[in-house]
Amino acid sequence: MNSVMQLLRSHRSIRKFTDQPVGDALIGDVVRCGQSAATSSNLQATTVIRVRNPDTRRTIARLAGDQEYVSTAGAFLVFCADLNRSRQACAMQGGEFVTGMTEHFIIATIDVALFAQNCAIAAESAGLGICYIGGIRNDPAQVTELLDLPDQVYPVFGFCLGYPAQDPEIKPRLPLDVVLKEERYRDTGDVDGIRHYDERLRQYYRTRTGGTKDSNWSLEMRDLVGKESRPHMRGFLKTRGFTMR
Amino acid sequence: MNSVMQLLRSHRSIRKFTDQPVGDALIGDVVRCGQSAATSSNLQATTVIRVRNPDTRRTIARLAGDQEYVSTAGAFLVFCADLNRSRQACAMQGGEFVTGMTEHFIIATIDVALFAQNCAIAAESAGLGICYIGGIRNDPAQVTELLDLPDQVYPVFGFCLGYPAQDPEIKPRLPLDVVLKEERYRDTGDVDGIRHYDERLRQYYRTRTGGTKDSNWSLEMRDLVGKESRPHMRGFLKTRGFTMR
Repeated sequence: MNSVMQLLRSHRSIRKFTDQPVGDALIGDVVRCGQSAATSSNLQATTVIRVRNPDTRRTIARLAGDQEYVSTAGAFLVFCADLNRSRQACAMQGGEFVTGMTEHFIIATIDVALFAQNCAIAAESAGLGICYIGGIRNDPAQVTELLDLPDQVYPVFGFCLGYPAQDPEIKPRLPLDVVLKEERYRDTGDVDGIRHYDERLRQYYRTRTGGTKDSNWSLEMRDLVGKESRPHMRGFLKTRGFTMR
Repeated sequence: MNSVMQLLRSHRSIRKFTDQPVGDALIGDVVRCGQSAATSSNLQATTVIRVRNPDTRRTIARLAGDQEYVSTAGAFLVFCADLNRSRQACAMQGGEFVTGMTEHFIIATIDVALFAQNCAIAAESAGLGICYIGGIRNDPAQVTELLDLPDQVYPVFGFCLGYPAQDPEIKPRLPLDVVLKEERYRDTGDVDGIRHYDERLRQYYRTRTGGTKDSNWSLEMRDLVGKESRPHMRGFLKTRGFTMR
């Protein structure tokens, strides 16, 4: 693996940051790198909002489930999926924007994620640590109000970045042969792969917590997909003009 | 900008490839780099299917809108959003999978995009070129059948990679101040920014095509969001167990 691959392989979320501020020029470079990611049909559906106001950051930290690093990180960004801009462009050419296409929702959401991941790599290449904050979808309506987002824009995730004040271990992932398949989807062996990974992850949690945390992947998944998750999302998206058809 | 940022900034889609094959070990490294991307609540919802069968690749090339590089690239991957694996893990712990949550659809789709973008960077760092193939969503039902995808798995996009046999110019993006905002969404100046970008993109197309292509961003957007786009997606996703609630 080359040095870029090694950088990619070294990712872990950072949730404790030093007081060192993140300069505007560096944020600009990070976001420019995001812009260079592929974008479906040149849609460029990403809008990034840098939130500096400490009150706003505290409010978002709280609604995201008391993730205090939203307040304390060197910088905090909100990544939005933005079809309002293309709606404007369409109107400039006399076109009429078609609201609510599920496909537009998908390409906008993917656009944002590709963009953000480039930002993550750029930030980490500059010695910063990052953490995605999906928790802003706990209350996307409040985030929408705080950031004054128009229709056809929704907040996808937050993004903390700053200089790391911790050096956590890299979390192990599923075995490669569980996630990379040949020719077609076959799940022969997946259960064995999951069992193997369960054991590895259990060891990882035990080591990391000095024996306090006793969990594994299948237990995590039971708690994640064995429950309703943010049941407001469907209705919220509709109020913002997404996924109606 | 450091060398990693320069790599990120140098991206352009590659659609012509040499005959040089892409080795299995390199594909393995690329996918491992994908696995290192952040994943929501450790869901790891990405399954990558490498398609080698020439007939299958030709079929997918055709349904993606005659994108022949799907057939000719050194390797072709299909990135799937996979909740079937977490459903299995949930069942291993006696849990009952909750079908159709829009939020699960969102986190799975974002997971796949973050993973794929790491693969893109890894591939480009090794001298490969890549191209995302959103066109597989032209007929996701046929792709699902070809790859034998179970319920709770959908094909998000294809991904060509190989050694480049072309060296296209980098496509300009929207001005930074249009996509990076402070504190809240404000669209003052966005129309000017779009006009400025329209002119830049028109020049880029003229230069690239020797004057044949005369378009700009707002015209592209009128054709993209001023029309229905893949209206089957909503119904298709429901048949696969996604976005029902």
